[in-house]
Amino acid sequence: MEQPIKVRASLRIVREDKLFGPGVAQLLQGVAELGSLRRSAARMEMSYNKAWSVVHGCEEQLGFALLERHIGGAGGGGAVLTERGKQLLERYRAFSLRAHEMLNQMAEEYFSDLLDGR
Amino acid sequence: MEQPIKVRASLRIVREDKLFGPGVAQLLQGVAELGSLRRSAARMEMSYNKAWSVVHGCEEQLGFALLERHIGGAGGGGAVLTERGKQLLERYRAFSLRAHEMLNQMAEEYFSDLLDGR
Repeated sequence: MEQPIKVRASLRIVREDKLFGPGVAQLLQGVAELGSLRRSAARMEMSYNKAWSVVHGCEEQLGFALLERHIGGAGGGGAVLTERGKQLLERYRAFSLRAHEMLNQMAEEYFSDLLDGR
Repeated sequence: MEQPIKVRASLRIVREDKLFGPGVAQLLQGVAELGSLRRSAARMEMSYNKAWSVVHGCEEQLGFALLERHIGGAGGGGAVLTERGKQLLERYRAFSLRAHEMLNQMAEEYFSDLLDGR
C-alpha cells in the first residue's frame, strides 16, 4: 500500500528573535518527567551547561521563568516547571500537533500528483 | 508597535524516507538562476561534492531526475532543471509560502495571550 506523504517540520516560534522551539520544549518535557534539568539533559545526551544555557537564553527572550530550581537537598537538587512554563509547553505541544496535521494534509494536496508512490 | 508572533519552520516532505526539503530546494533554485550546480553550491558555501550528493540522493529517493547536466563546453559545463525538477521546485515554494502563512496565523492564535510583546 502506498505510504502517505507527510511533512517533518521543525517549528520555531519567533518574534524578531527566536522565542521557543523543539530543543527547549524537549528539555522542559524531560524536567516535567524526571524532576531535574540535569537528568533531562542527560537523556538528550546534552551537557548540563548547554541545557542550562538553552533554558536560560529562552527565559531571557521570553521575559519570564520556565523552571523553578531546587538547589541541594537529598537528591542533589532538581527543578520543576513554573506555571507559565507548563502552560507554554502544553500550548507548544498542542500547536505542534495541530500544525503537523495541517501540514501533512497540505502536503498530500500539493505533492500527491507529482510524487507517485513507489 | 508590537511585533507579530511568527513561525520559522524547516519543512521536509517525507514518505517513509525524506523526499525533498529546504537544502535541495535552495540548490535547485541556484541552478535555475546560475545555470550550474557548482556555482549554486559555491553561493551556499557548500562543496560541489556535497551538493552533488544532496541532489543525487534526492533523485534516488524520488525516482526521477532533477537536473540535466551539460558536461564540458565553453563555460566548463553546467546544469538546468528537468521539467519535473522545475515543477517540484515551484510546488515546494508554493507549499512553503502557504504553509508559513498558515503557521504564522496559528501561532498568533495559540501564543498571543501567553507571549505578550515586550
